[in-house]
Amino acid sequence: MLSSHAGRRRMDNIGFFFLNTFLFCTCLASPPNFVLLFADDLGFGDLGCYGHPSSLTPNLDRLAAGGLRFTDFYCTSPVCSPSRASLLTGRYQTRSGIYPGVLYPGSRGGLPLNETTIAEVLKPMGYATAAIGKWHLGVGANGMFLPTRQGFDQYLGIPYSHDMGPCWNLTCFPPDVKCFGLCDVGTVTVPLMLNEVIKQQPVNFLDLERAYTDFATNFITTSAKKKQPFFLYYPSHHTHYPQYAGQGAAGRTLRGPFGDALFEFDNTIGNLLTTLEKTGVTNNTLVFFTSDNGPELMRLSRGGNAGPLKCGKGTTYEGGMREPAIAFWPGTIRPGVTHEMASTLDILPTIASLAGAKLPQVMLDGVDMTEILVNQGKSKRETMVFYPTDPDEKYGLFALRLGKYKAHFYTRGATHSGTTPDQDCPVFAVLKAHDPPLIFDLEADPSEHYPLPLTGKPDLQALLERIKKAKEQFEASMVFGESQISKGTDPDLEPCCNPQCIPKPSCCKC
Amino acid sequence: MLSSHAGRRRMDNIGFFFLNTFLFCTCLASPPNFVLLFADDLGFGDLGCYGHPSSLTPNLDRLAAGGLRFTDFYCTSPVCSPSRASLLTGRYQTRSGIYPGVLYPGSRGGLPLNETTIAEVLKPMGYATAAIGKWHLGVGANGMFLPTRQGFDQYLGIPYSHDMGPCWNLTCFPPDVKCFGLCDVGTVTVPLMLNEVIKQQPVNFLDLERAYTDFATNFITTSAKKKQPFFLYYPSHHTHYPQYAGQGAAGRTLRGPFGDALFEFDNTIGNLLTTLEKTGVTNNTLVFFTSDNGPELMRLSRGGNAGPLKCGKGTTYEGGMREPAIAFWPGTIRPGVTHEMASTLDILPTIASLAGAKLPQVMLDGVDMTEILVNQGKSKRETMVFYPTDPDEKYGLFALRLGKYKAHFYTRGATHSGTTPDQDCPVFAVLKAHDPPLIFDLEADPSEHYPLPLTGKPDLQALLERIKKAKEQFEASMVFGESQISKGTDPDLEPCCNPQCIPKPSCCKC
Repeated sequence: MLSSHAGRRRMDNIGFFFLNTFLFCTCLASPPNFVLLFADDLGFGDLGCYGHPSSLTPNLDRLAAGGLRFTDFYCTSPVCSPSRASLLTGRYQTRSGIYPGVLYPGSRGGLPLNETTIAEVLKPMGYATAAIGKWHLGVGANGMFLPTRQGFDQYLGIPYSHDMGPCWNLTCFPPDVKCFGLCDVGTVTVPLMLNEVIKQQPVNFLDLERAYTDFATNFITTSAKKKQPFFLYYPSHHTHYPQYAGQGAAGRTLRGPFGDALFEFDNTIGNLLTTLEKTGVTNNTLVFFTSDNGPELMRLSRGGNAGPLKCGKGTTYEGGMREPAIAFWPGTIRPGVTHEMASTLDILPTIASLAGAKLPQVMLDGVDMTEILVNQGKSKRETMVFYPTDPDEKYGLFALRLGKYKAHFYTRGATHSGTTPDQDCPVFAVLKAHDPPLIFDLEADPSEHYPLPLTGKPDLQALLERIKKAKEQFEASMVFGESQISKGTDPDLEPCCNPQCIPKPSCCKC
Repeated sequence: MLSSHAGRRRMDNIGFFFLNTFLFCTCLASPPNFVLLFADDLGFGDLGCYGHPSSLTPNLDRLAAGGLRFTDFYCTSPVCSPSRASLLTGRYQTRSGIYPGVLYPGSRGGLPLNETTIAEVLKPMGYATAAIGKWHLGVGANGMFLPTRQGFDQYLGIPYSHDMGPCWNLTCFPPDVKCFGLCDVGTVTVPLMLNEVIKQQPVNFLDLERAYTDFATNFITTSAKKKQPFFLYYPSHHTHYPQYAGQGAAGRTLRGPFGDALFEFDNTIGNLLTTLEKTGVTNNTLVFFTSDNGPELMRLSRGGNAGPLKCGKGTTYEGGMREPAIAFWPGTIRPGVTHEMASTLDILPTIASLAGAKLPQVMLDGVDMTEILVNQGKSKRETMVFYPTDPDEKYGLFALRLGKYKAHFYTRGATHSGTTPDQDCPVFAVLKAHDPPLIFDLEADPSEHYPLPLTGKPDLQALLERIKKAKEQFEASMVFGESQISKGTDPDLEPCCNPQCIPKPSCCKC
């Protein structure tokens, strides 16, 4: 039943096979560059090219029109740090220990140094590597968890969420519109770090994007001049609360602060594309865009939009974990839309394959998606598993997708998903076990509105057995790493440009 | 406040002004052809190019990629007949009398003959006119309300909804999958009419699309050969319940019966485009696509999808009345997306303007949108008004959109919108008056989740006054026509190929 259906999956695109094959072979001769763009709390329905009626995302829409747009692409966690850990390692957060929840400015833990990131996969191949933006995989004592310790030659950014500090005195929009809301006021003001040194504290949001663009432009230009292959990782902060945007984007969209913030990120993407063109490397660069988790609906119209999907951030419904994703590589990736299932987990193996780099000798959860990208082929991925924000061996998976079917063994709302009319989304929807699981056909019913009736349906009973088996097999393969987040926090670890100042946190200003 | 914001509205597109201007002038010299495609119960979120993850709509996506895609396009009623009346006359259904609800096979009334349709606007200009598909503006005694009495030279189709007859014995998908559900069993079986004569009863759904395609191809080819300008109106049935599809589309999509039905309609659109190309008239033809009302959510995964919008068919929320819309005219309309407000009401004035035809000497509610289409300009439309399925002078408008704001004076759910988790949508959400009205910023909050707090906001209080004034002005201008639907039904008027047979309705089979 699944296989015949899967056989019908196909690309909606225009073919130019020979050119494509030719160019791809050329590219293998000289290792391709990679630009990995990662949005924050951006929902499935937030981009113009994913149907949002008032978002202005001309550059992302251009990437989608000239590249491959995914309809069934998943992150691995409905919150930030674990999702980022999976993206960079190709492994579920449960293995690397980035659970439960997220890291804080003073967290003792971080992404363990023995985990291998995409940057570390590429370094032995001679790649230049840089990260700009939101790290959120730990700072630690003496910056031991910063990007520079995880394979990145350079870093410019805020090492965690930019709401992790007091907001009240910060300007989020010009001329002097203060950041909206209270953020986490108990920690030091938000720092901007260059490599391992605090450059500015608190950060100046109005000028942040220019600094990022300059840094990225310089990195690409320098690498291209040296003919050194490069990997640029840009996880943006913009669409996370509190939204911000500088002079060039503020007030320029129809959608208010969220739209302006998204537009500024989109502008930067446009600038990066221009730099790739100017330096003549566009046809040898894979640009990949996706997001870390679903929209933070609790922020009302300042949160994102899951489009037709159910709930958002913090939940294991589709709205929490299905994301926009675009792969752009002129001459190698044909324009089109793919309905193949794929995940942030698959980016590391794909990049390794394209660069001819060795995979880390660990249990990887990602699969190579080169075949989807370059040959419009099938996904090697048959399942996607859904852990909650606080994975626990006692409960195991909350949900599992097998082919077009998704089974929910547990459901639960989340604070982050409050405020929509769907009563399954907010935190008041407490943990509920489902036996048999709720099963949805995500292709006929992407909104997870209509659980399939199982009684008297031998086909679905057989499917249920397959799902249960897949779940058992996956869970048997899962060894939970030591929780890095349970190591707790220490205020002394909060990054402060003036470490001896008193009284913290307010005195950390430079 | 509105005007400065409106000033920021703009097109996301690529410019080629001179070519565009040149071609447009050329076109004015020889009157353009018009192909008007009208989907049935298709929601804002149902097409691939509007973000649906599993719909396969390659031809509509191609129209969108090469044409102008609207994000803020409205029909005038959340149900079928009134919406169609407005489309064809450029006037609200309240003027023409197509309310409350919809027409039935035996309805005594229909679109009054003194109403001027688009076909009648074009006839004096020498246009050939044809309609295929779903009419639903009345049959009446001796077919007095059929398309052939309303300016169409030719008609092939089912004159009302194809669920208005018994479904049980009909085949909706090959090889012999019976139509799903019960439909309206008390009336005659569904007829296929050629002009004013019943050609088949009950209709053969599996072969219907081929018949339509042949008819349309012949019409376009003949007109093009004669160098006669033409107007083809194709209101499809497919995505209305019960869905159906023939051999070429059944089982070919990811989305099940709804997806297959949509895919068959999309295939036909592809065939029509091919015919336009073959006959060499593509660059002199405006193809316009939209839908009559929002998705019929009560059909579960066999209903459509409103994407990020609230509720669906039968309601005056955005999901009930905001629709996908695409204008395609290579060389004249630049590819892009427009956020300008427009409506089915505007199609008649626009077509009249493009054809150089005279407008009917009546109170028109539509405005010419040539400026939006051809010059990427501003909409002349500042408001959109929302009548319920049963407009009534006592209640007046249920809602009004002014600029980016929408005010709900009354809200109510609908049977057609049942089954989603939003408790405002189903019929159990009874009529509720709002004073002050619920006001939403549709650009920041297209999902109508977050009514704006009015207290202590002088800007919004001023806006509210403007909205109330616009409502008063509109209502003062509205003269309700005699209700055609309240004239009731007469079983003898139901179209029967064998009028004297006994017992009706089951004996009407030929």
